[in-house]
Parts: sequence; C-alpha cells; structure tokens
Amino acid sequence: MSAVDYNSLKFSHIRVTLDDGVLVIVIDRSAARNTFAEAFAHELIQALDYADKDDRVRAVVFTADTSAPAYCSGADLSSGWKWSDANPDANTDHGFRDSGGQVTLAVLRCRKVTIAAVNGHAAGVGVTALQLPFDFRFAWADAKIALPFVRRAITPEASSSFMLPHLLGYSAAKAIFLSGETFTPTHPLLTRLYYAVFPKREEVFPAALKFAKELASNTSAPSIAATKAMLNHPPANVEEAHLIDSYMLKKMTAGERNDLVEGAKAFKERRLPKFTDPVDIMKNWAPWWKTLNLAPGSAKL
Amino acid sequence: MSAVDYNSLKFSHIRVTLDDGVLVIVIDRSAARNTFAEAFAHELIQALDYADKDDRVRAVVFTADTSAPAYCSGADLSSGWKWSDANPDANTDHGFRDSGGQVTLAVLRCRKVTIAAVNGHAAGVGVTALQLPFDFRFAWADAKIALPFVRRAITPEASSSFMLPHLLGYSAAKAIFLSGETFTPTHPLLTRLYYAVFPKREEVFPAALKFAKELASNTSAPSIAATKAMLNHPPANVEEAHLIDSYMLKKMTAGERNDLVEGAKAFKERRLPKFTDPVDIMKNWAPWWKTLNLAPGSAKL
Amino acid sequence: MSAVDYNSLKFSHIRVTLDDGVLVIVIDRSAARNTFAEAFAHELIQALDYADKDDRVRAVVFTADTSAPAYCSGADLSSGWKWSDANPDANTDHGFRDSGGQVTLAVLRCRKVTIAAVNGHAAGVGVTALQLPFDFRFAWADAKIALPFVRRAITPEASSSFMLPHLLGYSAAKAIFLSGETFTPTHPLLTRLYYAVFPKREEVFPAALKFAKELASNTSAPSIAATKAMLNHPPANVEEAHLIDSYMLKKMTAGERNDLVEGAKAFKERRLPKFTDPVDIMKNWAPWWKTLNLAPGSAKL
Repeated sequence: MSAVDYNSLKFSHIRVTLDDGVLVIVIDRSAARNTFAEAFAHELIQALDYADKDDRVRAVVFTADTSAPAYCSGADLSSGWKWSDANPDANTDHGFRDSGGQVTLAVLRCRKVTIAAVNGHAAGVGVTALQLPFDFRFAWADAKIALPFVRRAITPEASSSFMLPHLLGYSAAKAIFLSGETFTPTHPLLTRLYYAVFPKREEVFPAALKFAKELASNTSAPSIAATKAMLNHPPANVEEAHLIDSYMLKKMTAGERNDLVEGAKAFKERRLPKFTDPVDIMKNWAPWWKTLNLAPGSAKL
Repeated sequence: MSAVDYNSLKFSHIRVTLDDGVLVIVIDRSAARNTFAEAFAHELIQALDYADKDDRVRAVVFTADTSAPAYCSGADLSSGWKWSDANPDANTDHGFRDSGGQVTLAVLRCRKVTIAAVNGHAAGVGVTALQLPFDFRFAWADAKIALPFVRRAITPEASSSFMLPHLLGYSAAKAIFLSGETFTPTHPLLTRLYYAVFPKREEVFPAALKFAKELASNTSAPSIAATKAMLNHPPANVEEAHLIDSYMLKKMTAGERNDLVEGAKAFKERRLPKFTDPVDIMKNWAPWWKTLNLAPGSAKL
Repeated sequence: MSAVDYNSLKFSHIRVTLDDGVLVIVIDRSAARNTFAEAFAHELIQALDYADKDDRVRAVVFTADTSAPAYCSGADLSSGWKWSDANPDANTDHGFRDSGGQVTLAVLRCRKVTIAAVNGHAAGVGVTALQLPFDFRFAWADAKIALPFVRRAITPEASSSFMLPHLLGYSAAKAIFLSGETFTPTHPLLTRLYYAVFPKREEVFPAALKFAKELASNTSAPSIAATKAMLNHPPANVEEAHLIDSYMLKKMTAGERNDLVEGAKAFKERRLPKFTDPVDIMKNWAPWWKTLNLAPGSAKL
C-alpha cells in the first residue's frame, strides 16, 4: 500500500495520527456523548484497514478525549432504532448486518497489536465493539461498564454473545448479560478483562501508548500476525493445534529471515532486537481457517 | 398455557410458590438429607417446564430449607446404584439417560432467569445439576462444595464435564474434578462461579429472591429468552455470532413492539420500564441451533 | 505390560523413580540450563508411556532439581533453529511435527494424574509443553514464567495457542502471548493456572509429591482415566455431554466392580477406600472421540 498521509485524511467522527509505529484513533463525537453512529463505524473500519496494511503501523490504540462525557455511551438512538437506508438489504431479516459487528470483525482482522484505552464510561456497543475485540484493554478504575441490553428490551450485539464468554468464560458472561448491571473494571466478574487499571482518566491513554510503543519496537510483525491468527481462528482440538503450530513454526524458522536471525542474535547479545520483516511475509502460510460469506443473501442465517 | 395454581400442585419432593413474578422451588427432602432421587428430578423438571411456559413467571429461584442438613448432599444411594425400572431402556448401555442430566437440560431449556440459592452444603449432583446450569448462583460462604466422583469410583454426570469448564475454563475444571476435594465458594478456583456469597445461611435465599424480583420487574422477557438462547447455543465462531445477533437485533427492533418502545421511553424519562411482551414473541425467530435426538436408541452414543 | 524396572532404565536427560504409586520424572540437563532438546523429548514421551500402561503408577510428577538454573529455560538453540535429520519429513512444510507438541500430546494421553512441580524459572516450551498439558501445576512464587515468542520472531508451539486459552480463556491468553512479558505465578492473569504456590523452590516438589500420593491412594484409576478422557475430549455441546456421561455412568456403576463396591462401602463406614481396579477396565467403553491422523503426509495441514 502506498503510504497514507494520516494528517490529510478527512474523517468527521475520528482523529487519526501515527506516532512511533502506533496508529492512534480518537473518537471525536463529544457533542453526541461519543455515541456510536454508522458513519463513525465506517470511518473506524477504514482506519483499521489502513493500520492492517500500512507497514509503518505496528500497533493501534483506540481511545476517547478525557473531556468527553464518556468513552462511548452506546448506540446513537437520536432517531430511534432506525437502520441506514444506504443499505437496501438492511430492511430484510436476513440481509441486515449490525454495524457494531462490522467493527468487531474489522478489529479482529487487523494484524497489528490493538489496544483499547477506556478512559471514560462505556455502555452497550461502547463495550462490545469498542473493547471486546481488542487484544488489550486499559481502563480507568471508575469507568462504568454496562451491557444493559435486557433492560432495554434488545439483545447483545457486535458478536458479544460470542466474544465475552470467549474472553472470560460463561459464568461471567451469563451474569453480566442477564443482570444488565453496571460494573467497574476491578469487579471480580471482570477479572482479566483489563490488562491494566488506573485511578485517573488522564493516566489511561499515556500508559496504553507507552505500552503500544514498547510492543511496536520489540515484537516481530509476522509473529504478532501469526499469533493473532492462531488465537482468533482457534483449531477444533489440541491435535489440530499441533498440526497448525508445527506448520507455522516450520515456516517461521525457515531460511535466513531477518527477524529470526536478529531475534536470536539480540537474545544472545542481551540487547533489544530491531525487527524489520513486514507482516505480509506470513500471508501465504495462512489461512487454515474458513471464512463465512457474510454478504446479504449468501449466509444461511 | 392456562394459568397454573401452584398452591394446588401435588408435589412430594419440592414446594413451589409464585411470588411477584418469581417461581420459588424448595427441595423438600430434609429427612433424606436432601438427596437427589429420580422422583424429585421428575417433579423439578415439571416445575421448570411450568416456569418456562407461564407468562406470570419471569424468574426462578431454586433453594433448600436452612434447617435441612444440606442444600443437596448428592445422589440418593439408599438402594445402591440402581436405576428406575420405570424406564426399560435404563438397563441398556446406550439407552440409559442420567436423571441429573435431564435436570440440567430442563434448567437450560427454561427461558426465564434461573437462580440457585445455595444455602447449605452440596455434593455431586447437588452441584452439577442443581447449580451449574443456573444463570446465577448465590451461596453461603461456609457451604462445602464437593465433586468427589474420582474418590467414589464413578464419573462426573449431569453434563458437568461440559458445564464446569464452560463456566470456568479447563484449568479450574480439571483441578476440581481430578482432586475430588471439597471447596468453599470463595476458593480462588471457584472465582466467578458464585454471583454473591453471604456469611449466614439465612441470608442467601432472601438476597436471591430480592435480586430475582428486581430482574423480574426490570428486564424484558423476550430479551432474556433471546440472550439465554445465544449463550446456551453458542455459534461456532465470531462470524456466525455476527449473523445470529444481526438477525436477532433486527427482529428485536422491528415494528412498534411494546417493550422496545417502553424501554427507550423509560430510558429517556430516567425511570424504570414496565415490560409486558410475552416470551413467546421471539419463538419464531429461533432456533438457529440443532437439537440432538436424545431418545434411547436414536443417539449415536 | 510387564513390570518396568525404573532403576535400570538408561535415560540420559531424565531421572525416573517409582515412589508409592507415583512416577517421579526429573529433568536432568542442568549443564544445559535444563533446555528442551529432541532427545529429552523422546525420553520424556517414553516415560509417560510407561506411566500410562503400568498399573503400579497412579500419578506422575514432573520436576527439576532446585539446584538447576531453571525448571526449563526453553528450546535448546545451541545449534540454532535446526530440526533433527532423523526425521526426513521434518524438512517438508507439512511433514514437520514440533517435538514440544509431541510432549503435549503424550502428557494428555497419559491416563494417570499428572502434576508439574515448577520449582524454577520457565520459558517457552518449558511452559507450553512442560506445564500446560498437566492436570495440576504447583509452583515457586518467584518463578519467572515467560512466553516471549513474539519477541523472538517465532510463534506459540506445543499446541499452546489451544491449551492456554482452553485453561484460562482468551482474555488472559491474548495478553500473555501478545505482550510476550514475564509473569510470576501469582499474577492476576495467571489466576487458576497454578493449583498451589510456595515461597521457596525447595517446597514445591515435596508438596506436589505428597498431593500425588494422596490422590494415588484415594482415587479410582478407571474414574481418573474416564474423567480425564471427558475433559480432554470435550463434547460439542451440553446434549452430547449428557449422552457421553450417561453412557460412562452406566458403565461405571454396572456389575459388582471392586472400586464401586469399595467406594460406597468406605463412604458408609467413613473410612478411606482401597481401590484396586486397573485403568484398562474402561478401555472398551471409550473412545467417543475421533483421533486425527498426525502422520506426515496424512494430515490436511
């Protein structure tokens, strides 16, 4: 991909900057309480797609302004539950595709490290699409985390009925979804969901950015991409895992690939490595997984 | 279903009452240490079936008397390991169906919120069938929780070899099953299994009932049913989840359904909603899942 | 199997002794920092195979010398990433089989209780193959636990991309794999991974051995084997679990099998049981699971 000039991009709902290998995406809808709208979703998906393809980007941090009333306060219901007319299939039962789920899939597709810096309250899709699919979540200790679907007469979206138990197990997921209660990040039910929790809103993003830069510097892009692929497309059982990881290890250790040689050398010399292999070198080794056709009319569901 | 008069039901092993939208089921086998017998299982399954179909019931609490020696002390082995002659298939290897598992499936089938108020010690099926399939577990802090199958020369039953790791992951499940040790609800291995833990036996049921009534009042029946369906019949992967939850969200937000309008209105007016939609309105939207034929002789296993 | 004389075995990389029903396997490569080499893997797999088949063995403890610099410091890279010429298929992409994964599968195949006594630092395959597939992990509180694959430009091996989330869920697994950071056993992300943690290296193995002996004495070998089979070969859903565990319970409780009678009798007499049934009595009841053909050239991957 030819280099994107992030400063020149004309986004209306997000701000995007590239900082030392880290693409920082800030939701910029403070006047609308940082609600989630379809136009915002499209821009975010576009930015994640750039991050996936741009070799300069090795990590992504998504965050909000600490002056905003929330990290994301949920779906924009200013016009009620109304779906975009832009998509004619949106009005058929089997053609409608939830925009929260589109964001979830775009985050999971991004082959770089992804971090959500949750520096404010979050509800509904502000948790499901804007937190669960990320590799790491950093949070403000007093952030209100709410998935109140059953109290609003709707259902979990953005693939969250899969992602939340995938991350935490079904005991936590059932309790969180079926109570519809509001939690804070240190609640025992959320144990492990947040990688780091901070007492002040202002501390969350700088810590996440510092962490992202460290990973951007010291991890190998094809390794990150392959590891993410193995975790996001789990094998059916331990034997299938053995076949997949044997194949990946063979590919990863073949030849005189720069990152492999540099990784071993840096380890012996007890110094930090300088990795340069682009993510695309592992492109042809994968995928082992099947992709569903999600186009309206094509899927069985 | 025509309204059931719960006071007139002739149960011998349980007591059933309807209280403000909550069906309370109490195991009534104190003389037999609240052991689990086939006749008890049949009555419990019957009561859960009423709860599923009766629109007045929005939540179920299962509990024991605090004067009983246990919440449930396991299988009734007063006649040894002997299976009911009522079921002629029980004596064939592939025809036998464990009554604990029948209860587990009945609890999971119930489309209302289910809560186990564990106000006494529990062993074997008193944990597997009478706790694991429930949506929430409230417990007495000093309750002895034991799954000693390997110490009795038998194997985990009531689908617990699936349900326990489903709830907590395999590290906890292997340690609990293979040690056969006795734990209390606050043991680190059981983290997240219990939604709330109380120092006194007498506190458990009132707290569970209060919680159940709050959910009965403030959650939408079709939302609870659909969310439970999504969690109890997980999709194969995140893409399939996207198809399922897009479809459910479309159905949930279509038209001028009372609960949807009321949910949005109550949210705007910052008041509690009054939901009235019956659970059956989501009946035709589901299921996306396949059901095994469990009849003796029909299953491959 | 005719009785093995463990004292006479000619192993070069491990020491093996039988102690009160517990097979103790000690990695003996201190001069090489207890690195993982192919020859070591072959010996360990052989010892695990003996443990699986020898009726005198009811539990296995794997450990290291506390005088060694590490429990296992990872792969032996003294000759770089070079695969054994002994296996001609090792040089084809689809023929290579990772030796760490071979160990993982051998540990999982062993039908006796398996315990890893992690009394030193562990990295890479010293965590993946030598800890994750074991039924229980005991650890030294100050042990450094590191899975730094992404920082070495390689990928998770030994089926760990399956086993770690299987044990702990994907939130912990993603954070551990994608950060590549070093943790200690009491870190919140590792909650539940370790059954017991001890302040001193010297305490770990004696505690694990005592625990192993208790289980060797008081658990029934066919029950352990069947329970492990149910946990290591999970059914697809709760209904399939009901079919499998009904079948297993029927088989387990049929006839006048010694362990069943003794288990019930000991329970009534409030004494410890003396179990004698060999593991092979459950051999013909299983398996319900399918096994992949892992031979080079046979697998699709």
